[in-house]
Formats: sequence, structure tokens, C-alpha cells
Amino acid sequence: MEHPHISRRRVLGGALGSLLAAGAAGEALARNVKPQHWDETYDVVIVGSGFAGLSAAYEAVKQGVKRVLVLEKMEAWGGNSALCGALMCMPLTKMQKAKGIEDSPEKLVADMMAAGRGFNHPELALTMAKNAAGAFDMLEECGVEFQDKVIRLGGHSAPRAHLPKVPSGGSITVPMHKWLRSKGVEFRNRANVHELVFDDDGVRGVKVTFDYDWHTDTGRREGTVRALKGVVVASGGWGQDHEFVTATMPAYAQLECTSQPGATATMIKAMLAAGSLPVMLDMFQLGPWASPDEKGAGPGSFFADYAFAEGMAIDPKTGARFMNELADRRTRAEAQLKVLEKGTKDAPNYPFCFCSQATADHAEGFKAAYREGTVKRSDSVEALAKLHGVDVEALKQSIADWNEIVAGKKEDPFKKPLDTRTELNPPFYSMRLSPKLHYCMGGAAITPRAEVVSAQTCKPIPGLYAAGEVTGGVHGMDRLGGCSSVDCFVFGRIAGAQVAARKA
Amino acid sequence: MEHPHISRRRVLGGALGSLLAAGAAGEALARNVKPQHWDETYDVVIVGSGFAGLSAAYEAVKQGVKRVLVLEKMEAWGGNSALCGALMCMPLTKMQKAKGIEDSPEKLVADMMAAGRGFNHPELALTMAKNAAGAFDMLEECGVEFQDKVIRLGGHSAPRAHLPKVPSGGSITVPMHKWLRSKGVEFRNRANVHELVFDDDGVRGVKVTFDYDWHTDTGRREGTVRALKGVVVASGGWGQDHEFVTATMPAYAQLECTSQPGATATMIKAMLAAGSLPVMLDMFQLGPWASPDEKGAGPGSFFADYAFAEGMAIDPKTGARFMNELADRRTRAEAQLKVLEKGTKDAPNYPFCFCSQATADHAEGFKAAYREGTVKRSDSVEALAKLHGVDVEALKQSIADWNEIVAGKKEDPFKKPLDTRTELNPPFYSMRLSPKLHYCMGGAAITPRAEVVSAQTCKPIPGLYAAGEVTGGVHGMDRLGGCSSVDCFVFGRIAGAQVAARKA
Repeated sequence: MEHPHISRRRVLGGALGSLLAAGAAGEALARNVKPQHWDETYDVVIVGSGFAGLSAAYEAVKQGVKRVLVLEKMEAWGGNSALCGALMCMPLTKMQKAKGIEDSPEKLVADMMAAGRGFNHPELALTMAKNAAGAFDMLEECGVEFQDKVIRLGGHSAPRAHLPKVPSGGSITVPMHKWLRSKGVEFRNRANVHELVFDDDGVRGVKVTFDYDWHTDTGRREGTVRALKGVVVASGGWGQDHEFVTATMPAYAQLECTSQPGATATMIKAMLAAGSLPVMLDMFQLGPWASPDEKGAGPGSFFADYAFAEGMAIDPKTGARFMNELADRRTRAEAQLKVLEKGTKDAPNYPFCFCSQATADHAEGFKAAYREGTVKRSDSVEALAKLHGVDVEALKQSIADWNEIVAGKKEDPFKKPLDTRTELNPPFYSMRLSPKLHYCMGGAAITPRAEVVSAQTCKPIPGLYAAGEVTGGVHGMDRLGGCSSVDCFVFGRIAGAQVAARKA
Repeated sequence: MEHPHISRRRVLGGALGSLLAAGAAGEALARNVKPQHWDETYDVVIVGSGFAGLSAAYEAVKQGVKRVLVLEKMEAWGGNSALCGALMCMPLTKMQKAKGIEDSPEKLVADMMAAGRGFNHPELALTMAKNAAGAFDMLEECGVEFQDKVIRLGGHSAPRAHLPKVPSGGSITVPMHKWLRSKGVEFRNRANVHELVFDDDGVRGVKVTFDYDWHTDTGRREGTVRALKGVVVASGGWGQDHEFVTATMPAYAQLECTSQPGATATMIKAMLAAGSLPVMLDMFQLGPWASPDEKGAGPGSFFADYAFAEGMAIDPKTGARFMNELADRRTRAEAQLKVLEKGTKDAPNYPFCFCSQATADHAEGFKAAYREGTVKRSDSVEALAKLHGVDVEALKQSIADWNEIVAGKKEDPFKKPLDTRTELNPPFYSMRLSPKLHYCMGGAAITPRAEVVSAQTCKPIPGLYAAGEVTGGVHGMDRLGGCSSVDCFVFGRIAGAQVAARKA
């Protein structure tokens, strides 16, 4: 039954064999097919160079694995991790303890389950929370420098967010990358993994397009890389894959995305083709601080948080507020979508947020957003009404109501927390709002040991591990800020430890 | 490249070929593999004999297809459809119009989107709503007799629910089955389809275990059936597949299920293995009227609706109400799960509902549930408190509060609609509550033409159609009563029409 001249077919037969071997009929399928040729051989192959991939490489190195290869599709290293705000919510770090903050993994899990609307896989959430403090130690070892503060983010019941000195993901990916190279880990960019290759014992390698150019979705050379111990998929989300987003969640077909352009569905598709069980593919976190007047999440998205806290958001059709501007992300994004639905393609109805001068003066991102024209100034209520096509009397009433609320003379029907009480007076600074895809909540189902679950057997697919945004379940339907980074660190490390422990 | 002696491999190669043909690398894979042997040949093969399968067969017959085979896994015909309450929400039927009720497909879609929390695939919902009235005509043609009334169900903005003379699904499946047999459609029961078979042009048949016994999950004979035009999967949900439910939604691992025992994941797995894109696999509708003290959805579940309307539900830990007893199903089930979470395995904390004699006297299901011991009588508040382990003073207070609410002296903090105002006085009739899996919201993604969508291409898989509970998207995250039947009728018919139009 060996046919060495049809290697591709044989590889496919192996893959589908594993798909169907434990199928409903219980038929055992022969899986005596092996790839005929490997271009290169490593112990561990990691797909993606963001927080999850780097953490997997870190742990594989710590466990003594010699030949680790990290493949990155893009020219730039680090994916969305390199671009993020680098907030990391980690209970029980030595820094948090030194500050005398009371916290626990269980408290973090409770917060995550509330944000996740109960869809979280409880064991995954607890695994993340319990191992979070260890991530802090890993980062320190890799040379990441932290600010000496622990802050509290929305939806979290304790201050537990840590920040690197320069609060950007690059402050983490760059030192980790450097540390890993110093330990002999190999990195290759413009290497687009697009298929998982099986042998009798499970996943044994990957097919790669090298010299890959994402602009044209083509490369110069096809290759196969063997992974003697297994493959870790840490390829991130796919919010930029319009076709895949539309197929899974057509109601979001028109939404822009805040991710880097490499965030496509290549690897989630490869995992589906390899028989992995997907969960929550239709659940996306939307950024409610996004504007149609800037690309992705620009400076306007920082400004919006301040305008939400000290100003208000208005539906142009009514001139009235329509949400608690400090509700959780999903609640706010859904409220904005309802406002947008009242418009048409030719006459859109963008909600907008605005604030007074005092707020603008201390709002992060304001200067850049104003310079770029995302945020606009209006010197009177009339001018603000004209700018957004709102009935001026209705808008005046909304502002008067708000000023009574901050004066304590009226109750807020939306019950927004009033940490500051800032009266709204001209000049006003406003920005149009339109939610954007920010994070893929769903992905491959994994076990607490970062093993990818088979849709056919509901058990791990041997040799295949995954961590980070390409997986689903940890955060449920929606996630809190400062938690995806920790998810990547924790499950990346677990994947690295698991694959390291596997026999070659 | 033809190797006639390895037929199984060849079939698999074909299947995975179609999986990967349009994969990320854009490599075209040879798919010149055909099954070597078919035991039988039909034009159309339909998997499942519930509402969706019967409707597909109906439409195939109407379109002139001669050889239609319906395969049913169980001994009994009709799956869960045969057991359901047979409510059918269909706007613009001649009966609804004759009664002068104002309604429209768009109104139904708006109601569905509210229940579905916006996760609905809008085109699918609209397709269902627009074609609903046509289902009425189909059923009449097949000999289904309707009651001369159109009623309004919870969450629906108009009276649009139709009922057969005897309000049970069997009043629909039996005459349809009979009508279809009279037109030459063949039916086979105990035929467990477990794999979809491909040829060069897509899905071309199925693998079946005949003489199948669900108790042992084994059969006497394996067979292949060719479907010249294609296959319609109408196999229903998988709420009884504990392993698959747990893998997709571990938080629901402990929940019972109201479905018939054949509701396993065999066909959704077969579709996943065939490369279909799944959506919302983790979303289940829970029945909030279910009791741990009866199997599935028994007479107690009918009683509960009356106790919810005219009585109240109590958390034993607090002795207080904890939900609007008439909120939508998801809201109520989630509130109950929160109450249950306060208990332990050894000391469970089942919420319970109860009502007075007057309510019990007219509550559907009461007599049987009382006879079976699911509903219990307590002659005093003290006895009721003792029965459920509640603090008697707290319970007395809750009852006193309720009686003030129905007397109009107090506002209901949960804002339950008060269509009737019934004071609570002993004797009380109570039932313990525990939500059960009632409906799989997710499944294979389909187009409005009932074509199954490929995860790799996001386009239809040729020759593969699906309808009913095995699909996902129509209802979004949760569904309204009286809508799954119509989903089955409409998309079953569309699937039948599409497969009929396909070239053999």
C-alpha cells in the first residue's frame, strides 16, 4: 500500500485518517501514510511570534529542547502583541503583594466569567489566573522592565494590571525575542504556515510558503518542516479576514478591524482541516471607542475613553444619550450598532461622543486625534448640532440634563459611574463612533494543557498545541482588558512545556 | 493514478481534497478519486425524518424527483419533531389574515433578532420569515389539520402561532410521512448515517450502518448509498451527546437534556469531517421550566409556566425571588444557574417555583406532575419552607411582598408582567427547578439556499444541503417558541428544491 510517488495524497490521507479514525462508525482506518520528504527538521515548530509563540519558545528552551523554530508570516515580528497596550492583569505577583493589594486567581476568574457572559471554559480561565503570576517572573527573566505600579482596569475587582516601562507590546516582544535568540531559538519571518502535516502518531510538521508577501498572498518557495515533538499554533486572530468573519458572523460583515493586516484565518482554517473542534467562532470583541474617521484603533480611541467618562455619547437621530458610556465593551458596542442601524448607506447615523475643553486638555490621544481631524472642535451647541446633523433643541436638552446629573440634581437614567463630575460647556470636542472588530473570542478548543481538541473524538489531537487568540474558551463571549496578554503568556508556556515533554 | 483496490482511501482523499482544494496556499489538489462501490443509488438522500427531512422530501417530490430516500437512525420516526408541542409561528398565513391580525415577516425577524441577541444570520432569519406562510400551505396539502386559532407566544410582537388539531408534533409528522409514502418516497429506519462520501463534484452519497441499535451504538450491516443529486442533512440536535456538549460548552456539562436519546453528534461530526463551517456550537437553549425530579420535559414543565405566571420562584438560600419569572428563556435559565451555583453536590440549592390552588386547578400538566411527585403540596408556609430548606421568615416576607404587588400596593422589582393578579395563599404546590438543554442553537453554517458552507472556502460544499436544528444561525444565540418548526419547514423545502435542481 506504499505509493511513494503520490506524497501529497498520502499526507492528506493521513490527515483525514486522523479526522475519521474515531468517527461515529468506530471504524479504524489505516493511517500508514507518511510524508515522503521533509525539507528541514526541528524538535518543536511554533507558528507565530507574538506573546503566545514567544512564551511557548521560552518554556521549550527552559525544558531543554534544543531545536526550536518560530515561524512568522509577516515581515514584522510580534503580530498584534507588538502593537498592543501591554496591560497585564496578574494576581499575586510579588509586585502586587508588595503593594498590599488583596487579590486571588478566583477573583480574577469571577471577573472574567462576568465579562464572558458565562461562556468561559471554567478550567481554562482558572488555569490562566493561577499561572498569571509566573508570567511576571518569565518576563523579568527575559529582561522586561516594569513600571512600579499596579492599576485597576474596568471590570476588574482589584488593581492587578502591570505595565512595562514603555507601555507598548514591543517592550515585551523585543526583549523576549532577543533572549530567545541568545538561547539558540531560530526565527524566520515571511514564513506562511498553511497546513498541518500528520503521520501515524499525529501532527508531525507543517507546510510553509517561504518569502511570503502578504500584500499579494504569494511566496517564492514551498517547503515542509518536520517537528519531531510537535507543533504549537500561536497565530493569533483573523479579524482582517473579511470573508471568514462574514461567514461566521454576517451581522458584523460591515465592521472594520483594529488588527494588523496579517490577522487572517489561514491557521484557524488549517486547524479545522486537521479536525480541530472550534468554539465561539462567531464571537468577536468590538472596540466601542473606535471611529470611522481613523484607521484601526488610533489616537481617537484613547480620546474616546475620556469623552465617555466626562462627556457623553449621542444618537444623532434623537439628540439624546443612548447608553451608559462606561458600561462594558460589549454593552456599549451593541448600543452603538443599534444607533448605526437607524442610518442608511447614503445617510449614515454615526453616534458621537464629545467633551469639554477641560477633559480634552488631559485626554490621552487628544492632540494627535485633533490634529488628524478625527476629533473636531465646535464652539457652540449650535455648531456641534450642525456638525453631526442633530436637532439643536434636543441636544441642548441632553446637555442640560447631563449638567443637572453631575450637579447631583438628577439621577442618571443610564447609571454611569461618576468618578469625576465635569459640567459640559463649549467649546466641545467631538468624535464620531463606529465599533470595530478588536479581538476574536473564539478559536480552536484546547484542554488546560494547551492540547488542541479533536471535533471527532473530543480528545486531544496528538502533537498539536495552541495558545492565545487562535484558541477559544478562556474568556468566553467577551474579555476584560489586560487579560489576552496573560492568556498568551500562560497557555504559550503550557504549550511549550507539553510539547517539550512529548517523545520525538 | 487510479488504484481501484483502495476504495476507502480514495474516498477519504476525495473528501480531504475538497477540504483543502481551496486552502490558504491556493494549491489545486487532484480530486480524481471516486468510490469504487455503491450498494444502492437514489437521486436524493435525506438524513433524518423530522420536520426538516420531511419538508425536504416534500419539495423534492414536488419538483419531480423520482427516487428519494429518507434515512432515520432511530426505530421511531420523526425525531424530536414528533415529540414537540407543534407551535408554528407563521406570519401572513391565510388563517392569520382572515383573523385580521397585522403582522409581517420583518416583524418576526425583529422579534427573532431580539431573542437571538443579534447573533442571527439576518438573511437566514428573513428567508425563514418570508417563506413561513408557504409552510402552512404545504402542511394543509399533506393533510395536517389546524385549530382555528392563532395565538401569541412570549417574545412575539403579534399572534402568529398556529397549532394542529392535536397539539403535538406527531399530528404533523404522521400525515406528512403518509403523504410522502403515497408519492413514492422511501423511508428506512434504524439507518445510522455516519459519513458523507465525496466524488470529484462534491458530496455524492453516504455511509450507513443498517439495522442500527442506538442502545449499543452498533448495527448489523455497513452500506453505501449513492445520492445522484446530493444529500440533505436534517438530523437535528445533539443535546444527548454529553461528550460533545462538554467539549463545546463545559459550563453546561452537568445539565440534563430534554431531547430524545437519538440526539447525538454523529452528523454534525460527519459534516465537520467533510469540511463544513460550524457556528455557535457552544450556544444552547436551556429550558427554564425543567425539573430535576422528572425526566426531560415532562408534565412538570407545563405546570411551571403557570406557576411562573401566577406564583413565584424562590432561591432557597435567601428565601427571596431572584428573577422575573416571565423573562425570556435565556434570562431565566441563567438566573437559575446562578442560584444552583450556590449549592454543592452534597447540598444542592435547587430554586423552586410554587403557586396556589387556584393556579394548580387550571395549570396544564399539573395533575400528572402531582401524581408523579414532581409537584408537591404544602399546606402552610412553614411546610413549604421545610420542604425546600428555606428560612420560614424570609419566605413569609417574599409571599407578603408578592401579595402587595398583586394588590397594586407595591412595585415589582423584577417588573414581571401581571396579566392576572393572583394572591398566594396555602395550600401551595411547588416544583424544584433545574435548567435543561433544550435546543442546539448552533450547527453547520448554511446559505439562504440551504447550502452547507465550507470552512476552507466560505462557499457552498457542492452537493451538501442542511436544514433544521443541525444548522446554526437562523435564531442566533437563543430562539423564540414556535420558530424551530418553521425553520425546519422552510429550509427543509429550500434544501429539497435546491437538491432537486442539481444535475445528477
